Amino acid sequence: MKSKEFISEQIYKKKSLLCVGLDPDKHKIPKSYLDQENSFFDFCKDIIECTHDLAIAYKINIAFFEAQGPKGWLQLEKIFKIIPSTCFIIADAKRADIGNTSKQYASYYFDTLAVDAITLHPYMGVDSLEPFLEYKEKWSIILALTSNPGSKDFELQSLHTGKKLYENVIETFVESKYSSNIMFVCGATHPSEFIKIRSLCPDHFLLVPGIGEQGGDLKSTVEFGQNKFGGLLINLSRKVIYPESFTDYKTTVRQLANEYRSEMFKYLKTYSAGM
Amino acid sequence: MKSKEFISEQIYKKKSLLCVGLDPDKHKIPKSYLDQENSFFDFCKDIIECTHDLAIAYKINIAFFEAQGPKGWLQLEKIFKIIPSTCFIIADAKRADIGNTSKQYASYYFDTLAVDAITLHPYMGVDSLEPFLEYKEKWSIILALTSNPGSKDFELQSLHTGKKLYENVIETFVESKYSSNIMFVCGATHPSEFIKIRSLCPDHFLLVPGIGEQGGDLKSTVEFGQNKFGGLLINLSRKVIYPESFTDYKTTVRQLANEYRSEMFKYLKTYSAGM
Repeated sequence: MKSKEFISEQIYKKKSLLCVGLDPDKHKIPKSYLDQENSFFDFCKDIIECTHDLAIAYKINIAFFEAQGPKGWLQLEKIFKIIPSTCFIIADAKRADIGNTSKQYASYYFDTLAVDAITLHPYMGVDSLEPFLEYKEKWSIILALTSNPGSKDFELQSLHTGKKLYENVIETFVESKYSSNIMFVCGATHPSEFIKIRSLCPDHFLLVPGIGEQGGDLKSTVEFGQNKFGGLLINLSRKVIYPESFTDYKTTVRQLANEYRSEMFKYLKTYSAGM
Repeated sequence: MKSKEFISEQIYKKKSLLCVGLDPDKHKIPKSYLDQENSFFDFCKDIIECTHDLAIAYKINIAFFEAQGPKGWLQLEKIFKIIPSTCFIIADAKRADIGNTSKQYASYYFDTLAVDAITLHPYMGVDSLEPFLEYKEKWSIILALTSNPGSKDFELQSLHTGKKLYENVIETFVESKYSSNIMFVCGATHPSEFIKIRSLCPDHFLLVPGIGEQGGDLKSTVEFGQNKFGGLLINLSRKVIYPESFTDYKTTVRQLANEYRSEMFKYLKTYSAGM
């Protein structure tokens, strides 16, 4: 298992909280890749090659591969195999179903693809995620407070207890017997909520989308979101992998990744406990 | 588009509310299929052949195909093409993500696979489902109150308004501009909630899991859940496609499907409005 301590070690070794999001969009990737049969694989491979010493994690957005049908899945299966072992591998699949069905997803992502983590919808309750949670050597990353405006519709609604739904989601899973292999998705577009989130799950890792295109604030996210392990995997997708110019693509992507890495690490305190 | 009126017409023509769930489980399907290269396709094809005049809809459980990797998707893509046009086709995928990503899923399921409907998680809010909802000729089937015990964890929690979360989900989408091409998932394991559900969405179709293995009550589901269109697609998966004996498989499946069809239709009133 890639433990919290392992991830923390990588954070301080690479001086980074960066998670690179791999969202290969056929309308956006450099045209030179599109001529190739394995365009998505080749595109992701180049990104991995030029960022793996800067990135703590890769978040592979399954939707973009799924949208290509079987040939997308063929490429996806190959990508997981080329990510170096120093990096944490997240399948951003946002699955969840009744147990009998979740079991199918869990087996595919954890056994067949051998990812370290998968993102999951909590709506159907704890038992719907048990087939994932029962993999003690793997991580379940549960949606808590997402970065999109629609998070106000349900996630930020107050329950009769006065708590918000997303707080209840975090509490329910933290108090479950599966707490030790759970992370939560918390969007950087809600920096004021990070203090509350840290009071609910001080020791958990958070996967943080919303920096970049969605406008989340990096400084307050790291200041309020960090914990003794570092505790944050901050995702950048479009802002890193789709630069304004595609000339010298790998050098540009590396430079962008390095700028984000450097800025996020600047706000991170040095803890001894996490090392 | 397969309109409410179209589905209603099929209901009264076939005298059925039956949705057959296609969950090909390699540990459960008859061994004779497993020797074949396209075992899942062949298995589903036989079920479709022996039930299409009894079933209003087919619900294809994507997880079981996804778990097989690219060869699962190859078979899946073929299955959608052989379902007769009199039947409503549901991709039971339970997807949802931020707009940019949901768009990928929506395009794959609605454009490429050409399904009539897809099941969706509401947790991330209305904007996360908009790429699906914007397909005016297609149906978004949103999880409201699911059939599993974990539905008590969040779906049945009361909000500060006194309403339950699932009621708020139904209201939010019914009041949205997308109401006309939405259905909801409401589990048969909560028959007492159907009266409340019908007060919130009297004219919407409901996809109802939970009969069969999960123990939901068919009589009260139909009595309390029906509306002027018929209004229910009642799913049976395991109880129909995995009979106790596999001798003369297609005849047995047809007989089981017909028994459920006949029993559910018995509780349905005859409406003129829906015809």
